[in-house]
Amino acid sequence: MIVVMEQGASSAQIDHVIERIKSLGLAVHLSKGEYRTVIGAIGDKRPEHQSILEAIDGVEQVVPIMKPFKLASREFHRGDSVVDVGGVKLGGGPVALIAGPCAIESRQFLRTVAGQVRAAGAAVLRGGAFKPRTSPYSFQGLGEDGLKLLREVGDEFKLPVVTEVLAVSEVPIVERYADMLQIGARNVQNFHLLSEVGKTRKPVFLKRGFATTVREYLMSAEYILSQGNQQVVLCERGIKTFETELRFTFDVSAVPVLKQNTHLPVFVDPSHASGHRQFVLPLALAGVAAGADGVMVEVHHCPEEAMCDGPQALLPDMFVELSKQVAAVAAALGRSMVKPL
Amino acid sequence: MIVVMEQGASSAQIDHVIERIKSLGLAVHLSKGEYRTVIGAIGDKRPEHQSILEAIDGVEQVVPIMKPFKLASREFHRGDSVVDVGGVKLGGGPVALIAGPCAIESRQFLRTVAGQVRAAGAAVLRGGAFKPRTSPYSFQGLGEDGLKLLREVGDEFKLPVVTEVLAVSEVPIVERYADMLQIGARNVQNFHLLSEVGKTRKPVFLKRGFATTVREYLMSAEYILSQGNQQVVLCERGIKTFETELRFTFDVSAVPVLKQNTHLPVFVDPSHASGHRQFVLPLALAGVAAGADGVMVEVHHCPEEAMCDGPQALLPDMFVELSKQVAAVAAALGRSMVKPL
Amino acid sequence: MIVVMEQGASSAQIDHVIERIKSLGLAVHLSKGEYRTVIGAIGDKRPEHQSILEAIDGVEQVVPIMKPFKLASREFHRGDSVVDVGGVKLGGGPVALIAGPCAIESRQFLRTVAGQVRAAGAAVLRGGAFKPRTSPYSFQGLGEDGLKLLREVGDEFKLPVVTEVLAVSEVPIVERYADMLQIGARNVQNFHLLSEVGKTRKPVFLKRGFATTVREYLMSAEYILSQGNQQVVLCERGIKTFETELRFTFDVSAVPVLKQNTHLPVFVDPSHASGHRQFVLPLALAGVAAGADGVMVEVHHCPEEAMCDGPQALLPDMFVELSKQVAAVAAALGRSMVKPL
Amino acid sequence: MIVVMEQGASSAQIDHVIERIKSLGLAVHLSKGEYRTVIGAIGDKRPEHQSILEAIDGVEQVVPIMKPFKLASREFHRGDSVVDVGGVKLGGGPVALIAGPCAIESRQFLRTVAGQVRAAGAAVLRGGAFKPRTSPYSFQGLGEDGLKLLREVGDEFKLPVVTEVLAVSEVPIVERYADMLQIGARNVQNFHLLSEVGKTRKPVFLKRGFATTVREYLMSAEYILSQGNQQVVLCERGIKTFETELRFTFDVSAVPVLKQNTHLPVFVDPSHASGHRQFVLPLALAGVAAGADGVMVEVHHCPEEAMCDGPQALLPDMFVELSKQVAAVAAALGRSMVKPL
Repeated sequence: MIVVMEQGASSAQIDHVIERIKSLGLAVHLSKGEYRTVIGAIGDKRPEHQSILEAIDGVEQVVPIMKPFKLASREFHRGDSVVDVGGVKLGGGPVALIAGPCAIESRQFLRTVAGQVRAAGAAVLRGGAFKPRTSPYSFQGLGEDGLKLLREVGDEFKLPVVTEVLAVSEVPIVERYADMLQIGARNVQNFHLLSEVGKTRKPVFLKRGFATTVREYLMSAEYILSQGNQQVVLCERGIKTFETELRFTFDVSAVPVLKQNTHLPVFVDPSHASGHRQFVLPLALAGVAAGADGVMVEVHHCPEEAMCDGPQALLPDMFVELSKQVAAVAAALGRSMVKPL
Repeated sequence: MIVVMEQGASSAQIDHVIERIKSLGLAVHLSKGEYRTVIGAIGDKRPEHQSILEAIDGVEQVVPIMKPFKLASREFHRGDSVVDVGGVKLGGGPVALIAGPCAIESRQFLRTVAGQVRAAGAAVLRGGAFKPRTSPYSFQGLGEDGLKLLREVGDEFKLPVVTEVLAVSEVPIVERYADMLQIGARNVQNFHLLSEVGKTRKPVFLKRGFATTVREYLMSAEYILSQGNQQVVLCERGIKTFETELRFTFDVSAVPVLKQNTHLPVFVDPSHASGHRQFVLPLALAGVAAGADGVMVEVHHCPEEAMCDGPQALLPDMFVELSKQVAAVAAALGRSMVKPL
Repeated sequence: MIVVMEQGASSAQIDHVIERIKSLGLAVHLSKGEYRTVIGAIGDKRPEHQSILEAIDGVEQVVPIMKPFKLASREFHRGDSVVDVGGVKLGGGPVALIAGPCAIESRQFLRTVAGQVRAAGAAVLRGGAFKPRTSPYSFQGLGEDGLKLLREVGDEFKLPVVTEVLAVSEVPIVERYADMLQIGARNVQNFHLLSEVGKTRKPVFLKRGFATTVREYLMSAEYILSQGNQQVVLCERGIKTFETELRFTFDVSAVPVLKQNTHLPVFVDPSHASGHRQFVLPLALAGVAAGADGVMVEVHHCPEEAMCDGPQALLPDMFVELSKQVAAVAAALGRSMVKPL
Repeated sequence: MIVVMEQGASSAQIDHVIERIKSLGLAVHLSKGEYRTVIGAIGDKRPEHQSILEAIDGVEQVVPIMKPFKLASREFHRGDSVVDVGGVKLGGGPVALIAGPCAIESRQFLRTVAGQVRAAGAAVLRGGAFKPRTSPYSFQGLGEDGLKLLREVGDEFKLPVVTEVLAVSEVPIVERYADMLQIGARNVQNFHLLSEVGKTRKPVFLKRGFATTVREYLMSAEYILSQGNQQVVLCERGIKTFETELRFTFDVSAVPVLKQNTHLPVFVDPSHASGHRQFVLPLALAGVAAGADGVMVEVHHCPEEAMCDGPQALLPDMFVELSKQVAAVAAALGRSMVKPL
């Protein structure tokens, strides 16, 4: 850390900071400029230290040098991590498609969509059984019945399945049925839930929050990793900004920024980012062109009957087109597609 | 709802929308302009309807007319709700101060701060036993031991106590010790947790998320209210924007906007909004001047020893000054202060 | 427009709104729901009308139905506009590269860069002679001397040239030397300057402001078009958000949103969006994959000697690589590259 | 400046940075930690240096220590600057009200409003003659005729006048008629215009841009100050965020942050920040409570006839109430009001 003292800080204030740094077990490196004194605190490893030093009188700012995440970092693990989801490998080069409906609505419906997306190249099936809804009066999902359907249909179509877990209490049941546990954007800083899925042996699909910086996002991944679960997949799904044409602003630059900082696979979710099906294709292509390891999209064969998020669901033939174009862009950049099992 | 059709929508598309509106049990009101057809859907009460209509081909946008929150709205309850926290009344006119340390660190420490803030006019004591921390490597709070200390010290100093609950599993224990349960910014859309505290009989102090719109925030309050718990206090604590001088951007206009839309009391938390103690006073005054029902602040007599958020903790004499100036501004606007018990 | 009255609006208030709508020369369409009255105002063409109606007591909100831009809209001109820049065609399918240094520094330097970027496939040369700098103490550009060099080198290497114009007073001189006039992000709502370049016969390269919505951006284009100049090229170059890893957040979704709304060519500028050269390539690819008509990038053979924006300048061999990969992605999506003259 | 090298930077890279720092005339201070090397560059005064060092291979980040603004800083001028506007003193303690219509519409109209706001305590009259409008099809103001009316009515009612200047070419004429020149939010980084008003001898009312950081804002003030004009008044008027209930998000914390960093007077404009008259009062009070030197508001006696921004105009009796309450809050905080001449 580097402690920048206020212009005009007294020598008593400077001495006090130096002593405090030493009391934290760190080495001190003093540098006096014409206007300001700057004090290096060397050897720092504790996230609290910054806050402790900032709280001292005469300190203008404290600049951290080390990144606060460790297990998630490229420094910790140079190569690309590959996450195994029921036999499907995510990360490490090839591009994967995860597709399915927003919510699981019925067996017949889910079988229809599963068949369509697998035929078009999806390697993993998505579908929500527990739905986080802004309104308490909205459809909240089929719960365990939905999980059973998802498992059954996944097995039938040889598609490993991913589904969202909303609460610590649901972790055991979701873990029983799913091949990968999804943490939604609204729970990205639900630290109890992160720790809990970190204790399972199932991969975790961790979506970025819509107001989470890349740095905070990697700290959330760190919560899972620090519990011993190394199987984490990240996913950019749009952030909140002043621009309101689409539901969120798709932060495509998060893809290369994440890839530079972490070894974990990075996906994109253009369905939630845009909220409108006609924008899903260009954003999916943008994500893959920027280096994403895969794309998660929502597909529904009758969106106006969908129990949630109908406007953003791709029709099956739109997904066929997306799959083709994603494969073309991937090939242009020397990358293959992950084949379904 | 108002459905705006795309320019050039076909009459088949228009007819389909009309039929779909009718099938949802709503009345239809058709209006054809020179360029666009607009269709009113009258009688709407279900949040899903907007999404269903938006998913239909030829629909450009759907504009909701009714607000999505009900129990939280001024239409539902005209007057100001007053929330009783262990005998202290929040809302309805007078201005209240809630103060205490970020985290409960020890009995002696908590007694010192409690005595100081009560003497200066605080009516409720705050203190964290379960701490949500961005880093898994940071201090996570004293847990139940902290709750016991908080209860004990609150009783000694006749200060009702509020403390954060992070998970559904912690609700029973926090409910046992605290007079009011706090939901932190990161859990504002943790819908399970909202529902769970909605089932308790303790008041809930619900902080706004740093990327939650006023509308989404009121939907989160609605989750609690819809479970039967009418005792909800709202609190603006800063949102994320491009401006980085302070930790967050204090959205003071949320105070009058919330007061216009809801009957629930609205507090401000200038400590978390600013992140620096020298800005807590002006933001507290701004909040009260804008109509807030009270202020929550963090106080610590030795911030550089604080186990979290030392830089934003007021020193005890700064809190004395804040209390005086808040009272002066309140009086200037014809409002009194809530006295400690 | 649709006027939504407040719940509980009086019939006098409703009558007054109806009369006011009629006085504006619009037809009225009344719709009374159980809770709210909604009044359609049909035939609206003036941007002021919304504001007039919003100002009336009892009005809750006014929802515009028509888009405020006309000449820029797809409704006005269905096909893709193609803009001719000194013989190079921008828009209409093929992908073009515009490259060059941030600032023109010297003849020899500019010749070096121009030769390199042309050899690698750039069709237009960029370079700043008048530089908008945040600090009054920074290098402000070579002025007319720079323009002369740009013209001379552009002619030598058969590269049409684009350069920024900062002020109305500079329009004549920039018009004399350049093939396309650039309006920078900070001037996107400098309406005088927009009108002035609208009166020239040179194409205009109009960058999006970093806090400009897509809608406001198209209104800025409308200023130019309304003066009779139909040759406008748009360019997304990053917006301001809470995320600070890169200089701006590259809003790649603006590309398809703009393409849906307007016939004008849409470029991307990944250099300014990212601020760091290692992120220019993935963002350029993302932009093209999302449908951009071209890419503008900064190139410098010795960035640490650059007089501005060195960190974001591509080294010449990085531009060669970018050109190859952009061409590959374009080809994968069935698009060709614009060849240099 | 502090240069943080990448983890794993080679000694050749480190040596190169050291040499480059020396070549810029700065002293070097080297500090090697376990993982990273940090190099202090001491004596820095040029804004370009940061960018030059960031452009070098192996450099992870460059942290500036000195603030980039000088003449605007508290370090340069410890006390509060007082700006004299036609005899009315702004800044230095007392709170001033600037009021008037958005646009000057006619003599009779302006006389009515001027009489009303003066009687209620406004010390300066505002009114737009040149209007920056998002749409080229909107009313653009009365131009010089408006300026003449403003001067005439200001003189009649003994109210110094402030009006916006949009372009360099308008500076001489606006300077002739107005006592203070206003630079609007959209021109806050129109550096030519800033320099030009910096060459006049009239005070400048510089509004913050809606996407301008406090730091960038002070750099814009620096442009004016660096031309020799020390009479600059700042004004917070709302920034763009994800929250859309009001037109902008009023960044009240900018008031104390600015006051800490600069000696210039700081006003607030709650009319533009909110866009709705019912929110102007609470935001005005918040601004003053947070330490603002004054409030600028729009007043119109018949908002639904207003040629622009009717929804945000206060009715005259609302302004009377605002004036009373602002005075009460100011008095509560030991501050007086600036009296009209």
